[in-house]
Amino acid sequence: MIPRFSKRFERDSSGLESLFTLSEKKDAISFAGGYPAEELFPKEELDAAFLKRSELTDNSVYQYSSALGYEPLRAKIRTYAKRNGIDCEIENIMITQGAQQGINFLADLFLDVGDGMAVEAPTYIGALEAFAARSPEFYEIEMQDDGLNLDQLEEVCKHHQLKMLYTVPNFQNPTGICMSLAKRKRLAKMASQYDFLVIEDDPYRELRYEGVGLPSIKAFDMSGNVVTLGSCSKILSPALRTGWLIADETLMNALKNLRLASDCNPSSVVGQMIDEYLEDNDINEHIEEINDLYRDRRDAMIEGLKRYLPEECDFTEPLGGFFIWLELPEDVVAQEILDNYGDVTFIESSTLFPVSHRRNCMRLNFTGVNDEEIEEGCRRLGDAIKETLYERISVK
Amino acid sequence: MIPRFSKRFERDSSGLESLFTLSEKKDAISFAGGYPAEELFPKEELDAAFLKRSELTDNSVYQYSSALGYEPLRAKIRTYAKRNGIDCEIENIMITQGAQQGINFLADLFLDVGDGMAVEAPTYIGALEAFAARSPEFYEIEMQDDGLNLDQLEEVCKHHQLKMLYTVPNFQNPTGICMSLAKRKRLAKMASQYDFLVIEDDPYRELRYEGVGLPSIKAFDMSGNVVTLGSCSKILSPALRTGWLIADETLMNALKNLRLASDCNPSSVVGQMIDEYLEDNDINEHIEEINDLYRDRRDAMIEGLKRYLPEECDFTEPLGGFFIWLELPEDVVAQEILDNYGDVTFIESSTLFPVSHRRNCMRLNFTGVNDEEIEEGCRRLGDAIKETLYERISVK
Repeated sequence: MIPRFSKRFERDSSGLESLFTLSEKKDAISFAGGYPAEELFPKEELDAAFLKRSELTDNSVYQYSSALGYEPLRAKIRTYAKRNGIDCEIENIMITQGAQQGINFLADLFLDVGDGMAVEAPTYIGALEAFAARSPEFYEIEMQDDGLNLDQLEEVCKHHQLKMLYTVPNFQNPTGICMSLAKRKRLAKMASQYDFLVIEDDPYRELRYEGVGLPSIKAFDMSGNVVTLGSCSKILSPALRTGWLIADETLMNALKNLRLASDCNPSSVVGQMIDEYLEDNDINEHIEEINDLYRDRRDAMIEGLKRYLPEECDFTEPLGGFFIWLELPEDVVAQEILDNYGDVTFIESSTLFPVSHRRNCMRLNFTGVNDEEIEEGCRRLGDAIKETLYERISVK
Repeated sequence: MIPRFSKRFERDSSGLESLFTLSEKKDAISFAGGYPAEELFPKEELDAAFLKRSELTDNSVYQYSSALGYEPLRAKIRTYAKRNGIDCEIENIMITQGAQQGINFLADLFLDVGDGMAVEAPTYIGALEAFAARSPEFYEIEMQDDGLNLDQLEEVCKHHQLKMLYTVPNFQNPTGICMSLAKRKRLAKMASQYDFLVIEDDPYRELRYEGVGLPSIKAFDMSGNVVTLGSCSKILSPALRTGWLIADETLMNALKNLRLASDCNPSSVVGQMIDEYLEDNDINEHIEEINDLYRDRRDAMIEGLKRYLPEECDFTEPLGGFFIWLELPEDVVAQEILDNYGDVTFIESSTLFPVSHRRNCMRLNFTGVNDEEIEEGCRRLGDAIKETLYERISVK
């Protein structure tokens, strides 16, 4: 008989797996995924970058490398970070296997059982999974139109020792909401004042369909209490498994050791390839192309939802990112709609609220579906919700 | 102020970092590394494999993929595993970021504070780091000429609840010792009998310079108590960050969830590249080339040690792998030789014994140095040891 799993993994299994399964369900239209649109990957340019760099490098490119990752790529990330108000050295930047690895490293480095862990409510399921494996005490902080409710957070800080807060400040997963400038400044200050760490997870920043971007929360961090995560997954390709983590020195020293014991170092072959891609191409042009397509899809989904959903529904109209958040009347259970209909899929909300497990909301993805699918999916969703509401009323 | 690290990371920092630093020390000859010889990387063939596969694939190669990794590559690993006596399905194989990630996953999945964790004494520092982060109770099991002392292990099992045992059965890191067939069979049986998990870490298996290979420990596992890890790092390239983990169903289901929360999935771009390399090349021919060079280097180092070391020294003569293990008289401190001389570097032993911290041994790597460096390094090492012994005697 195999031994028991550690206490961390005795709990019920992951919501993440169902997320991946749902995205692949046959015959259904999937609003469940969080995948970028495949047709936009710059495959030709990435392949060419690999080829070109392979001619410029010797065997050392296939050797072990530093725990922080390929230095010239980190230098480019430093320049990019500066544009967002973050002034750091390349020693403060670690290349990670996607931003997910950064989240997991920070959870591992900081969280003991019972530690105070604040999250936006709702929040990103992948982050929750990484935190939950360390059994912290979760605090849900309500989302408002301009980002998380800092008054509520401050109340928590006054009554409990908070260790970390996790936030997606731009086009939040799953609500699509952006945090205001005033809140970014106040949050950085609060982190310093109450000695907690802010994980600023920022994979959607560049996917802005209107308006202009705001500085990172880390831009206002004077005490090293904010760590910023970024990712190539949404602007280049998820298969590159390349993200980054920006942290101050003390923290980075600890993270380097943790990295060596986790998976040694990131691939320098991939690092070189991305570096060459950035040398030879204007990534901002590429991002504009992405945004042109996603803007249309967002518009199509908002239009579809307005057309087909009953008026009892409420949904966000995000300025960028991947997701629309849909709230149904409080006594409707989104999972039941999924079970009863299933010809359109989405992420139901209970796994996205670690404490309240609210069940009446849905995360809808608009970037991985085309216009026809969006139209038809919204129609199916509207019908399913109407039938559910109607039945509910008639049962009463 | 940033919050305190978790209890797991409050301890003294890593021996791993010094390992990487030592390997890069200027002007010294390094026997400290664990790097493969760069000149052997099949760069041209790997680059060509990428190029060829890039012509055969569409954009989907740049998308997120399954947590287990690229399926055709797993099918090839399955065939390879079968040759070593392991009969498994591709669903039992997970591609990992090097074998290190597999070690770390298993440590994470199983170890609670105080759990019984048996390791070979001495053992691989990178594995120790991953285990130590979960604060288990370590048990050192002595290494004999034919692998770890199973009578001693059985005594531990009778008096303590052991959760895991970590072993490198072929050309062990750091001693170079192979486990006998009889011990492999007995260990698999003991794991089942005493309900502990065996981590069989097997990255050096193919680097055999004489004799024939033995079946995996997992070949004798009837109860799912053995997990085998393999790696491309030593036979192809470490920069591919590609290893694998073979486990039975229950365990693999848990590992899939853990993987999703850790870094989602391995890169399918890299997976495709390795798969194409294996289609187009005879990797066994490549391994023969590696072994021809490493065999010469091993012979050169054994010869050098015999020539220059005083008779008070004892060292292993491994049949394969990367390392020779050198034992000095019990009251000699290897670290002092490193501090006092330093023109030849090695891994001193205290960090490789998690309980006894024996200080009088050295791990010597022979694969990353050429014949001249080996000759000169052995001379320097011999001089340093003689001077140390002589001084010690004269002080007495």
